[in-house]
Amino acid sequence: MRGKFITFEGGEGAGKSTQIKLLEAELKKRGIEVVLTREPGGTRLSEKVRLLLKDELEDPPCDRSELLLFLAARAQLVKNVIKPALERGAWVLSDRFSDSTFAYQGYGRGLDLKILRLANDFACDGLKSDLTLLMEISSEESLKRMRSRESATGTVADRIENAGDDFHSRLRFGFKDLAAQEPGRIKTIDASGTIEEVQEKIWKRVQLLI
Amino acid sequence: MRGKFITFEGGEGAGKSTQIKLLEAELKKRGIEVVLTREPGGTRLSEKVRLLLKDELEDPPCDRSELLLFLAARAQLVKNVIKPALERGAWVLSDRFSDSTFAYQGYGRGLDLKILRLANDFACDGLKSDLTLLMEISSEESLKRMRSRESATGTVADRIENAGDDFHSRLRFGFKDLAAQEPGRIKTIDASGTIEEVQEKIWKRVQLLI
Repeated sequence: MRGKFITFEGGEGAGKSTQIKLLEAELKKRGIEVVLTREPGGTRLSEKVRLLLKDELEDPPCDRSELLLFLAARAQLVKNVIKPALERGAWVLSDRFSDSTFAYQGYGRGLDLKILRLANDFACDGLKSDLTLLMEISSEESLKRMRSRESATGTVADRIENAGDDFHSRLRFGFKDLAAQEPGRIKTIDASGTIEEVQEKIWKRVQLLI
Repeated sequence: MRGKFITFEGGEGAGKSTQIKLLEAELKKRGIEVVLTREPGGTRLSEKVRLLLKDELEDPPCDRSELLLFLAARAQLVKNVIKPALERGAWVLSDRFSDSTFAYQGYGRGLDLKILRLANDFACDGLKSDLTLLMEISSEESLKRMRSRESATGTVADRIENAGDDFHSRLRFGFKDLAAQEPGRIKTIDASGTIEEVQEKIWKRVQLLI
């Protein structure tokens, strides 16, 4: 039986990577093979593309180039990792996927959503997620979590994370709008509670796929 | 006055880079500023993308990823180099451009030409060449020149150059078909003669733009 493809979306600091690991453990307990991926990345080529996207110093990609790099990384990931995994029955959990492209490059950067969807569909060779969990926290909470992550790990926010308040409000609106357009596939998860509370909300959604 | 944008196309070994340098010298003699670019490449980001495309060992790009990487490199080149140059009145000579994408990824790899054109148009933000010189030599001559270049420089043909005879016949057909579809923009140059003979044929075409 073909595996399921679940993607996690939402702004920075919403707890995506924590929840992905918890869900992975939950599925493994039930004997399900789980493959984790992140975007952009997940293959050697895609990780190299990720470095180009994160680099803000030398020659930061223009908006169109940024989009095309994201899609190039995704095409490789879909072809070499996600599709083969799903075909052998594994479940794939991805930290970001197509909806991030629509939100960031479409609503955020203002690129034409119709072209984005066409190009993205080409990159994915038609693959869509079975379930997308949109992790929602307030912008104040998101900022707080990002800052505390920065001081805890000594890292600083990258080029995209630093794109400014206006950009981030368009992003939030974008994710909401996308969820409203595809209520069957995209489920909004209130991510403001404790880790355990959020985990439970996610599990209720995922159980329906088993 | 806006500068002119001339692209050189054709299979390997057709003498594109030699002729580009000769044309550059000819235009400079007439006081025209000339900018040379090559594809994929021409900006720091695009040169890094070039390395990913040429790499055949670790994780060679799948067909869709290959296309998207070419377009990402092109988007950056158009935005940061070609358009600004044309706007200040410089002429831009490019070693390969959009028609290589249509020939290699469309006719060669078999990707849908309609999607290619849409995605390419997005990457170029609508920019087209004023003149494209399609340098034509026989496949025997192309092979001979590639081999002699290999032994002269100690380099070996890369992943794309090594894609096999079938691929290269589709490529040749593709370039011819493209030239037939846009006879106003794409001019075929018989590149089998001496360097001087070919240079003269090119100059006759270019003069008409001055």
